Amino acid sequence: MQNLMQQMEFIIEIDKLKDIERRNLILQGKRFENTAEHSWSLGIMAMLLCEHANEPVDQVNVMKMVLVHDIVEIDAGDTYCYDTKGYEDKADREKQAADRLFGMLNDAQQREFRALWDEFEDRATADAKFANAIDRILPLMQNWQANGVPWKKRNIRVDQVRERMAPVRDGSVEIWELSEHIIQQAHEKGYLQDA
Amino acid sequence: MQNLMQQMEFIIEIDKLKDIERRNLILQGKRFENTAEHSWSLGIMAMLLCEHANEPVDQVNVMKMVLVHDIVEIDAGDTYCYDTKGYEDKADREKQAADRLFGMLNDAQQREFRALWDEFEDRATADAKFANAIDRILPLMQNWQANGVPWKKRNIRVDQVRERMAPVRDGSVEIWELSEHIIQQAHEKGYLQDA
Repeated sequence: MQNLMQQMEFIIEIDKLKDIERRNLILQGKRFENTAEHSWSLGIMAMLLCEHANEPVDQVNVMKMVLVHDIVEIDAGDTYCYDTKGYEDKADREKQAADRLFGMLNDAQQREFRALWDEFEDRATADAKFANAIDRILPLMQNWQANGVPWKKRNIRVDQVRERMAPVRDGSVEIWELSEHIIQQAHEKGYLQDA
Repeated sequence: MQNLMQQMEFIIEIDKLKDIERRNLILQGKRFENTAEHSWSLGIMAMLLCEHANEPVDQVNVMKMVLVHDIVEIDAGDTYCYDTKGYEDKADREKQAADRLFGMLNDAQQREFRALWDEFEDRATADAKFANAIDRILPLMQNWQANGVPWKKRNIRVDQVRERMAPVRDGSVEIWELSEHIIQQAHEKGYLQDA
């Protein structure tokens, strides 16, 4: 029972991810998305889209990575991807968060969760490149479906989004091509400002 | 690209799960939980808790089942577990929802998602029994942590919660014992009414 109680304390703690607000709207456009529900979408995307990865990927590893990778935001917050200042200490803040949060787990599970998070962040393996690709295409689609409102509010430029989407190509050329198509249309419609 | 677009349409459609409100509060107690973020919690629980299953389970199958099993609520809504009337046509409503929603996918993925949903609903396999167990223990913990407010608001009785938790025993005696412990304490504190 003791091990179960320790695990339950972690499960209760990470419920806080439902309070971490992202900068994109949910697709019905009514409110900002939170990171927990974002992670669920990525889990389903991992189930559906692995065939589009550039190299063969381990679907299960991709699923686990996307479910776990944002837990650190409970302490570190969601750093907006176009916030240059926020990105300066993002790695430090998230490392501390990983230490505390995954440190709540028993040794074996702590190692597993930490390894998944490290792998995602390092973007070195085929699995991590693909996991990062789906993590980036989803908000692009959401912002596109929301008529670009979150971009317009912050005067985001087309070159900023292109740069953000560049790593998608490392994970899936096909998904990257879709992102290019969306970016071009978003630019034409004035959702994104000129470079 | 055509297959990718079809999959993306499904991913956009199921974003609606973020708008389906459940009857329990998130653990910070500030608002009701939605079904998408609930499903994310279950995915993490599947990663952590399978060792407590009565019989050996396939962790990956449990993970996929819990991520997928509530998608039908997009059309069928969340039926409150103590709503006897709502339960009368729950199966019919959810079957229609499964037909429409999973029907958006290509044949192979449609079969996979449908099979996962059927397996969860049938509660016949060890995997499904365990998936159902974690699906039921989570709101119990949430209601307990929220000082029983959602129960008190609806005058829920201790025997109703016990009945709801009975199938947890089929999946995990250890998790069921934890639920019994919580129910007893909740009753003593007056969060749950007498039978």
